[in-house]
Amino acid sequence: MTPALGDIGKRLLLGRKLRSTQLGETLLPKRLALPVFASDALSSVAYAPDEIFLTLSLAGLAAYSFSWKIGLLVAFVMLVVVASYRQNVHAYPSGGGDYEVATVNIGPTAGLTVASALMVDYVLTVAVSISSGVQNAKSALPFLAGHEVPIGVGLVLLLTAMNLRGVRESGAFFAIPTYVFMLAVIGMALWGVIRYAFGELPMAESAQFEVRPEPGHEIFNGLAAVFLLARAFSSGCAALTGVEAISNGVPAFRKPKSKNAATTLLLLGTIAVTMLMSILFLADKIRLRFAEDPATQLTQNGEPVGAGYAQKTVIAQIADSVFSNFPPGFYLVIGATMLILVLAANTAFNGFPVLGSILARDGYLPRQLHTRGDRLAYSNGIILLALCAIGLIIAFDAEVTKLIQLYIVGVFVSFTLSQFGMIRHWTRHLKSETDGGKRRQMMRSRVINTVGLTMTATVLVIVLITKFTHGAYIAIIAMAVLFLLMKGIRRHYDTVGKQTAVDGDETLMLPSRVHAIVLVSKLHKPTLRALAFAKAARPYTVEAVTVDVDRAESDVLQSEWDRMGIPIPLKRLASPYREITRPILQYVRDIRRQSPRDVVMVYIPEYVVGHWWEHVLHNQSALRLKGRLLFTPGVMVTSVPYQLISSQAAEERQDREERVAGQVRRGPRKSSGDR
Amino acid sequence: MTPALGDIGKRLLLGRKLRSTQLGETLLPKRLALPVFASDALSSVAYAPDEIFLTLSLAGLAAYSFSWKIGLLVAFVMLVVVASYRQNVHAYPSGGGDYEVATVNIGPTAGLTVASALMVDYVLTVAVSISSGVQNAKSALPFLAGHEVPIGVGLVLLLTAMNLRGVRESGAFFAIPTYVFMLAVIGMALWGVIRYAFGELPMAESAQFEVRPEPGHEIFNGLAAVFLLARAFSSGCAALTGVEAISNGVPAFRKPKSKNAATTLLLLGTIAVTMLMSILFLADKIRLRFAEDPATQLTQNGEPVGAGYAQKTVIAQIADSVFSNFPPGFYLVIGATMLILVLAANTAFNGFPVLGSILARDGYLPRQLHTRGDRLAYSNGIILLALCAIGLIIAFDAEVTKLIQLYIVGVFVSFTLSQFGMIRHWTRHLKSETDGGKRRQMMRSRVINTVGLTMTATVLVIVLITKFTHGAYIAIIAMAVLFLLMKGIRRHYDTVGKQTAVDGDETLMLPSRVHAIVLVSKLHKPTLRALAFAKAARPYTVEAVTVDVDRAESDVLQSEWDRMGIPIPLKRLASPYREITRPILQYVRDIRRQSPRDVVMVYIPEYVVGHWWEHVLHNQSALRLKGRLLFTPGVMVTSVPYQLISSQAAEERQDREERVAGQVRRGPRKSSGDR
Repeated sequence: MTPALGDIGKRLLLGRKLRSTQLGETLLPKRLALPVFASDALSSVAYAPDEIFLTLSLAGLAAYSFSWKIGLLVAFVMLVVVASYRQNVHAYPSGGGDYEVATVNIGPTAGLTVASALMVDYVLTVAVSISSGVQNAKSALPFLAGHEVPIGVGLVLLLTAMNLRGVRESGAFFAIPTYVFMLAVIGMALWGVIRYAFGELPMAESAQFEVRPEPGHEIFNGLAAVFLLARAFSSGCAALTGVEAISNGVPAFRKPKSKNAATTLLLLGTIAVTMLMSILFLADKIRLRFAEDPATQLTQNGEPVGAGYAQKTVIAQIADSVFSNFPPGFYLVIGATMLILVLAANTAFNGFPVLGSILARDGYLPRQLHTRGDRLAYSNGIILLALCAIGLIIAFDAEVTKLIQLYIVGVFVSFTLSQFGMIRHWTRHLKSETDGGKRRQMMRSRVINTVGLTMTATVLVIVLITKFTHGAYIAIIAMAVLFLLMKGIRRHYDTVGKQTAVDGDETLMLPSRVHAIVLVSKLHKPTLRALAFAKAARPYTVEAVTVDVDRAESDVLQSEWDRMGIPIPLKRLASPYREITRPILQYVRDIRRQSPRDVVMVYIPEYVVGHWWEHVLHNQSALRLKGRLLFTPGVMVTSVPYQLISSQAAEERQDREERVAGQVRRGPRKSSGDR
Repeated sequence: MTPALGDIGKRLLLGRKLRSTQLGETLLPKRLALPVFASDALSSVAYAPDEIFLTLSLAGLAAYSFSWKIGLLVAFVMLVVVASYRQNVHAYPSGGGDYEVATVNIGPTAGLTVASALMVDYVLTVAVSISSGVQNAKSALPFLAGHEVPIGVGLVLLLTAMNLRGVRESGAFFAIPTYVFMLAVIGMALWGVIRYAFGELPMAESAQFEVRPEPGHEIFNGLAAVFLLARAFSSGCAALTGVEAISNGVPAFRKPKSKNAATTLLLLGTIAVTMLMSILFLADKIRLRFAEDPATQLTQNGEPVGAGYAQKTVIAQIADSVFSNFPPGFYLVIGATMLILVLAANTAFNGFPVLGSILARDGYLPRQLHTRGDRLAYSNGIILLALCAIGLIIAFDAEVTKLIQLYIVGVFVSFTLSQFGMIRHWTRHLKSETDGGKRRQMMRSRVINTVGLTMTATVLVIVLITKFTHGAYIAIIAMAVLFLLMKGIRRHYDTVGKQTAVDGDETLMLPSRVHAIVLVSKLHKPTLRALAFAKAARPYTVEAVTVDVDRAESDVLQSEWDRMGIPIPLKRLASPYREITRPILQYVRDIRRQSPRDVVMVYIPEYVVGHWWEHVLHNQSALRLKGRLLFTPGVMVTSVPYQLISSQAAEERQDREERVAGQVRRGPRKSSGDR
């Protein structure tokens, strides 16, 4: 590719340039904010019902009657959480989200716990959504079976590339599929209900099968039954993930930000609950059967159906029945479902680097991640997220059922701590608030958040109990590792900050004199340049220094030196053990010892090369020496570059890359003043 | 481990310190030189006979009668090669070996071909010797079966550690096992011949089996038979590897170096031929059978013996028979064989880094490999060799038969080019030599080398024809890649050398003034130090520069600056796209543009940290900036280090490591003046 073409390619990929002052233009109206933030929450109707049926299947058909009751419970929790988060949105319009709420109201440890939990769940959102997208695609295109992992990995890579373009394009780009999905699913639900009312709705293709209970569940009662129902409920709660996305995104809304965000949140909750209940209702009516291992669990006339039966997802089976007389409807539903799942993964691609940037600002992650204008900052986050998600997809064979066991823990840890923080928030504000109306409103909010806390804490406990051994422990270990890592980084920055802080009465303590040393190995142009630069700086003393590793070579150097009449003395350091670093280090330390108030400036001629492999061939001794010299106080190391011809092309390439990097658009979510 | 204990550990591992002036003391007497250089050549009797029988087995027992004829042919080639190399040793006492002979007499391309071939063969020497050692060990300790690869890898790692000790210790260390091996094998041969003469020598345990010919070899005649015999001969020629080792090691001999080396070479050839022929003779007499895949190729009463039969190596089967009434003899032979094979691998560990150092001197490998006193130089070579050998052992399951197909090509390429070079050498010297006696001697030498060339070239062709598709092509590809790589490195160094060479009338062109710029991000101690050092250097102008990425942060910085009354102006660079590198680069380039005869010195405060992970947390922006600045001519970059507390421990650790590194003994082979 020629440079010019490369530029155009990058421009196409990364979008146009965006000045800081242009940020205001990119705020989202509600009609765009809903699809950007809602895809995660809405898309879960594509896999939450599957997980409910799949878990109930363990007890055979007897348990299927509980499906819509579990659905109602999930819907209830959803509405409570939405109501709670509407309070968050009003109280914290800055978009810090649960991390901010927990940090401000409970403390940094709680905040960091929330952050760890959210980071793990962002990764899982990508892995689960993409895997479910692939499974739905398989329902329409059976030939994809057996290639789930590569397809999933490919989709993650596609998203990664898209996210380097920035958010504004995303908003417009994601709106259409999200609305198509809503219309498709709600349309399907309405059409299905109408056909059912007229007695015309055909049974599901799986209605002919029996479901064989697993050993231990032959009789569906007692503690085992309760536990199974609780597990099904836990899996169904996957529908709640993504609700918190809006509370993180408040600054991206048009004014009045909080009100618009709260409205969008309510809208989102209503739509999600409607979809979930419709799907559960229709699944019941078409007598759908759905099992984790259909080949052995589903039976016909007492015989297992075997590996020949390709089980479609719940939404696909419903679409199959509802649109039995209108196949394009089936493909529309499946197509929209696939798309929304991919877009749901995108929510994580938005949130993860923003969270990383906030954590970097607070010193919990390497500081360079914070720099907003820096392409590397956000793209590092995006790439890290993609790699982790790809790892999970590969490790769990792109199977939603396995991945979902790790999911939700993080979200509910974050929900619970956030609600607890909100209660404290209201209690604190109530202490100082005197206005009666406002006090009443705060009391009401506190009640809502208290109900929210009770609910989310209960769900968290249920999730932990029912899923811990099935995989949740992996998520918890990951959270703990992240927590300790970030804690360690913060501790390190604190220590360094204390060490380097300026004491009150400090002034510039000028060293008295500068001794310059130019390191010489050969007499060539780089050396001459270093000598000239060193002399031009007019130090107190200037000396050229070479190490006598090979006496013959040094003699040649000395005679050339004399012949050229270089007006700087050449000092030859003895090196009986043929070392380079040690004699120089010793010499510099001796100068420092003789005049402790002076500084030594060591000039090192360095080749500037154009290719990475050229680095292997040059500067190796210089680099090591530099690394060692810097440990000695009172020593500066100056690199005097000598640009080889190959460096020119490299410089032009880098200039171009930086120009393009400056054009990476930072969307509104990444640009509010206080983050 | 405490530092003191660590020192002692390293001292034990690496041996005592050795000054350049002490090198003379470490020259080897013949009785030590023989075992050091002979182990490779002698050890091949442990696997060359196996390969001969194994290849002949393809045609069934009918071909076994050719075994001793092939042995005679190998012995004849061996003696011719030894005679030829005695000429090399006299003509090139500097120890440059085949590389030097080919380079001087044919040209650099031939030299580089030899070098590539030798490097590949060094790797194979390690892999083959170690694998054969493991197979012999298995003959005595059957429970090792199935763990060949980890044992082989472990042995390579052990050798790697030992080779960091240096050669002198090796000489003494390796003498005893080599002599024990010679005595054991020759003792076994004598005792076997005596028992045979008295009709008391028992048959081999495998004598009871028939050997089933492979398809295509049922009738042993025609071209197929000739080809098979040629292949067996090629494999048998593995016995010749290592002969060239002495010609590389001449400088390590006591005076008269060349004469002593030539004598040792003759001794080596005689012993190797004697051993090889004894083993082939005894194998014939005890009716030994040896097959590549004994489970299917060996039959008893028409039935394959199956996987239950554990085939012992040839030397083990002979020892079994000869010492049927004296088991300790068996264990002595096998133990000595195992040891000598490991020591043979050591020959490569000696030769490989020396060759690398010579090639680095000539600009074919990265220059830092040449530095003699540098621990990293040789240890890099040793580690590279170990990694390649381990890779081969793993890739070929530690199976000698598979590895041997890649072997020998390199050695015979090197033999052939070296003999051709020697002919040219004598022809050239004959042109100027007038002394009749010396002329006659030279003519005789030229005849010997001509016979040597004919012989080695013929063997090379046979090896290529019979082994190319069996694996030799891999070795040839490896050689070609190495050749091109080294050629490329040399071309690069030549280009750079031309670019940086000083023209005849060049003098120091002093730039007129120095503009100092101190990069500031925060006002802390590292910044204050950089400011103080910059000011102490008394530049023409000095300025502190910060990038206005975040206006609020910059305002805080400005006010602190004013409050402290720092006597250096603070320049704030606008950065509308929130970049760091570009504005600074632009600013520096502007200064250069305004006054092209001045230089700009950029001071960067740098944290000096103690752990690698701390690097991730600091200096990242500074490093990238520095990398970019160096591309601009007329710019110097000065690192002003600020030593964090954690750096102290790191410095002490490095000091200690360097002290120990200085104690690495360089043995005599690595210390002759001209290498």
